[in-house]
Amino acid sequence: MAYNLLKGKRGIIFGALNSDSIAWKVAERAHEEGATFTLTNTSVALRMGDTAKLAEKCNAELIGADATNVEELENLFKKSMEILGGKIDFVLHSIGMSPNVRKGRHYSDLDYNYLSKTLDISAISFHKTLQVARKMDAINEWGSVVALSYVAAQRTFYGYNDMADAKALLESIGRSFGYIYGRERHVRINTISQSPTVTTAGGGVKGFDRLLDFADRMSPLGNATGEDCADYCITLFSDLTRRVTMQNLFNDGGFSSMGMSLRALEQYEKGLHQECECGGALDEEHNYD
Amino acid sequence: MAYNLLKGKRGIIFGALNSDSIAWKVAERAHEEGATFTLTNTSVALRMGDTAKLAEKCNAELIGADATNVEELENLFKKSMEILGGKIDFVLHSIGMSPNVRKGRHYSDLDYNYLSKTLDISAISFHKTLQVARKMDAINEWGSVVALSYVAAQRTFYGYNDMADAKALLESIGRSFGYIYGRERHVRINTISQSPTVTTAGGGVKGFDRLLDFADRMSPLGNATGEDCADYCITLFSDLTRRVTMQNLFNDGGFSSMGMSLRALEQYEKGLHQECECGGALDEEHNYD
Amino acid sequence: MAYNLLKGKRGIIFGALNSDSIAWKVAERAHEEGATFTLTNTSVALRMGDTAKLAEKCNAELIGADATNVEELENLFKKSMEILGGKIDFVLHSIGMSPNVRKGRHYSDLDYNYLSKTLDISAISFHKTLQVARKMDAINEWGSVVALSYVAAQRTFYGYNDMADAKALLESIGRSFGYIYGRERHVRINTISQSPTVTTAGGGVKGFDRLLDFADRMSPLGNATGEDCADYCITLFSDLTRRVTMQNLFNDGGFSSMGMSLRALEQYEKGLHQECECGGALDEEHNYD
Amino acid sequence: MAYNLLKGKRGIIFGALNSDSIAWKVAERAHEEGATFTLTNTSVALRMGDTAKLAEKCNAELIGADATNVEELENLFKKSMEILGGKIDFVLHSIGMSPNVRKGRHYSDLDYNYLSKTLDISAISFHKTLQVARKMDAINEWGSVVALSYVAAQRTFYGYNDMADAKALLESIGRSFGYIYGRERHVRINTISQSPTVTTAGGGVKGFDRLLDFADRMSPLGNATGEDCADYCITLFSDLTRRVTMQNLFNDGGFSSMGMSLRALEQYEKGLHQECECGGALDEEHNYD
Repeated sequence: MAYNLLKGKRGIIFGALNSDSIAWKVAERAHEEGATFTLTNTSVALRMGDTAKLAEKCNAELIGADATNVEELENLFKKSMEILGGKIDFVLHSIGMSPNVRKGRHYSDLDYNYLSKTLDISAISFHKTLQVARKMDAINEWGSVVALSYVAAQRTFYGYNDMADAKALLESIGRSFGYIYGRERHVRINTISQSPTVTTAGGGVKGFDRLLDFADRMSPLGNATGEDCADYCITLFSDLTRRVTMQNLFNDGGFSSMGMSLRALEQYEKGLHQECECGGALDEEHNYD
Repeated sequence: MAYNLLKGKRGIIFGALNSDSIAWKVAERAHEEGATFTLTNTSVALRMGDTAKLAEKCNAELIGADATNVEELENLFKKSMEILGGKIDFVLHSIGMSPNVRKGRHYSDLDYNYLSKTLDISAISFHKTLQVARKMDAINEWGSVVALSYVAAQRTFYGYNDMADAKALLESIGRSFGYIYGRERHVRINTISQSPTVTTAGGGVKGFDRLLDFADRMSPLGNATGEDCADYCITLFSDLTRRVTMQNLFNDGGFSSMGMSLRALEQYEKGLHQECECGGALDEEHNYD
Repeated sequence: MAYNLLKGKRGIIFGALNSDSIAWKVAERAHEEGATFTLTNTSVALRMGDTAKLAEKCNAELIGADATNVEELENLFKKSMEILGGKIDFVLHSIGMSPNVRKGRHYSDLDYNYLSKTLDISAISFHKTLQVARKMDAINEWGSVVALSYVAAQRTFYGYNDMADAKALLESIGRSFGYIYGRERHVRINTISQSPTVTTAGGGVKGFDRLLDFADRMSPLGNATGEDCADYCITLFSDLTRRVTMQNLFNDGGFSSMGMSLRALEQYEKGLHQECECGGALDEEHNYD
Repeated sequence: MAYNLLKGKRGIIFGALNSDSIAWKVAERAHEEGATFTLTNTSVALRMGDTAKLAEKCNAELIGADATNVEELENLFKKSMEILGGKIDFVLHSIGMSPNVRKGRHYSDLDYNYLSKTLDISAISFHKTLQVARKMDAINEWGSVVALSYVAAQRTFYGYNDMADAKALLESIGRSFGYIYGRERHVRINTISQSPTVTTAGGGVKGFDRLLDFADRMSPLGNATGEDCADYCITLFSDLTRRVTMQNLFNDGGFSSMGMSLRALEQYEKGLHQECECGGALDEEHNYD
């Protein structure tokens, strides 16, 4: 169902790779709500993914840009304003990647060049996007910028590795720049901390299936889906949330406010009983991640 | 501007006293967005306030109910469902009052009967509302309940007195009941932590004008108004935020994420200079609240 | 091992019932560290528990006092100062009880008289203690007050019921009064949020054994014991933490900063596998708490 | 006053430049409490600062090490264990520097090479220290590691610039590594979030004097000094806090839990009155940082 919430608004959406991507669903919903926008990703991602299909569906143009590269970001904003016919009203930053996770480097054995890349791609790219936009004065008054985060920025999750630190940095950048851009141009900047979601990006995290199940049973409303996230983004891009800024907003079925649910505890208890029956000892020392 | 976000939805709105009330503005916006609802307040408030005008404007019925009284709440839900023709989709709880504040009792000289009333009116009434609704199964699946809070639940503000403790309790009730009602009926429960707002209720807090000014200069987007709060409520009542629950959501222009802004610091510095020039000593011992 | 950290300090310790009580262990450690103090509890608890043994061991006097009764608290402070020979340097508040938990009332079926008692005993008693102390000017400059809390004040735990709300209120009172008492007398007020601990008081919470196991496997250092908590209290009563106030301090082996550990997830996974093997369906609707 | 809290313990202290440094005061107190330790800093800092005097006073050896350099950290731990005669029990990480702050680059005009340096020096050096220590198994069971942080990691302070993001990253690293090192070796890792403190490092932040004054008037106990911080560190290095880990602990006189104090508000109000009298308009657009 559509409400014309973004009628007349112009946007830039980063990170739509394929139909599993949250950014893909945001694009579909933004289109339904009357927005026009450009889609962007790295050249490699544009070649490998299905973004062209999405562009066609949404009547949007594709602009290749490496979000860690200031010049390419400048080009992205310049072209987007030309194509869309004016300044930008909303931006979605949905970018994250850890070479340490991909290469299976444990958090206590990080490669520091990889860590720099993790931070540059997953967090500093957000600062670069904002700094470029502000220098070009490319975002309209009361514009809205959203980046996607995860609760690992606040609490440690086994296997999430240096992405946790990247998300903490990302959220801090949102606050820090939210102050500057807010007082000057009333541009609001928020992060959405989303349930674990099955996407191509999420696939690399160890034990991801178990984590999904655990999160789902812990969350009174179950895990938020990519579609839920897209709906939530629409409200943040709309004019109905104009004084919400510098916030990290959980879209997670309640997970972040849970300590232990009955559903998860019952599942957990089965494991306890099984252990008693089988005597199955854990050999944690050789088994950890 | 209206979007039909609440078309076909039925609600109950507590706490609209006069056109300064946040609940008043929520009612106006909910009406614009296509909702039907009942308005409720205590009998005294209904006699003293302008709620009847609002009811006429919104084509809503008034139902007197003391939110600390379980029987009256049962009657409220029963009648509301009859009048509106079905179960409830959204509830706004905008109720707060402290006899200790009204009577000028300092936080270190509380009257404990007054404190019980503060907690009963401002926080426990929220539990009663939810418990009654759940027992009557009066809220539809994926319904949405919002209560209004203030950042004093997290940080201490001079003069806010026992209302701070009441808001902390209110937010905890939102989380605790959010778990129960979420897992059973997918009803989501959130609190909005709003900028200080000039209402009849806000008037009793000491130093309120200065606090308003300080909050405004600290917040990159300035203080959120009652109208902003109404808009935000609409998004939370809509179907676009269905997996957001058990959250305390700041609608405050960024205040909650600020430590010190330039605008506030410059104002503050003027006070410092003046002090140097005038030698104006503070006599804090006899002056505090 | 003892360090004379509390040499010459005078204290009041609430809530030592038997050798399982955290307050009991705090008393033992405070005695070792050179403090003198009085022990207090309700008359009923003093009759039923072993507090007299503790008093003998620590060379401390017992003073019966109902912490919800202002007059009895006045008597407690008066007598304690007489017995100990001067103003008080530290206070431990270790008091919590929920008639709703005891009587098996579900959180969505609370008895509101019971809820008032839960709040009065578990939270408002802390305010009363502080208000009485301040009015009598019974605590020395830079004195230290600690109350015991639990992470359920921030996140919802199945079965913890209205004690969660009471702990949220308790922590808020700590902050609110910490401001007043800090600026006037440099008295610091903190809460320690302790791991679930096997005590007589903890026994009533549903599924407590499973929760203990889960918390232990989630916490990198395992659950903090009562002895750990006593050690931590000593540091907060000492002169080494004089500028720490209005804080909620987690003594929990890391639990509060964890989202998911490998140890807990492996246990959880066993439950998942068993479910697949046995087809054991959950009948949550009839089974919840 | 000394308590022998660290008798027999071996440590490494980073970042003592001169007698204003917090690390300097921690070294003095650790010495008083019976610890032996090495002192380390970059070669440049060792040449420029007074660390040699401190080393003599504390009977400690100086070891030059750039904390961003893994090999130098390996050498530091190796030599420290040789000199001290065994594994390490405690580590203080007191390192922070932002070339963007030093060069006056505004947060919306960051140099990204500088930003990399800020993060590497102020945050990633903490990970490197921990990773090196763990690979060498250089820290004893139940050892304690502390890094110094600032509340700007949670809330935005005018002028604190990219150091805010660095501190957010630092705290996240503390949590992430705290999980790993805790479960494997029971090593606890915490950050202390300290009041603004007059040190050589703190001097570069814009409007620092005003911020100090504001923080002092907001904090019921006033700003925590470097000496207070040293005392607090001692408790965290001692055996009395063995189950405290993955925490960010505020040593700030209550600032972090304050929204507005009377003292700060009165000062602020003077600025308001002066503005009315003088009509002094702010020209914020040309004046911001």
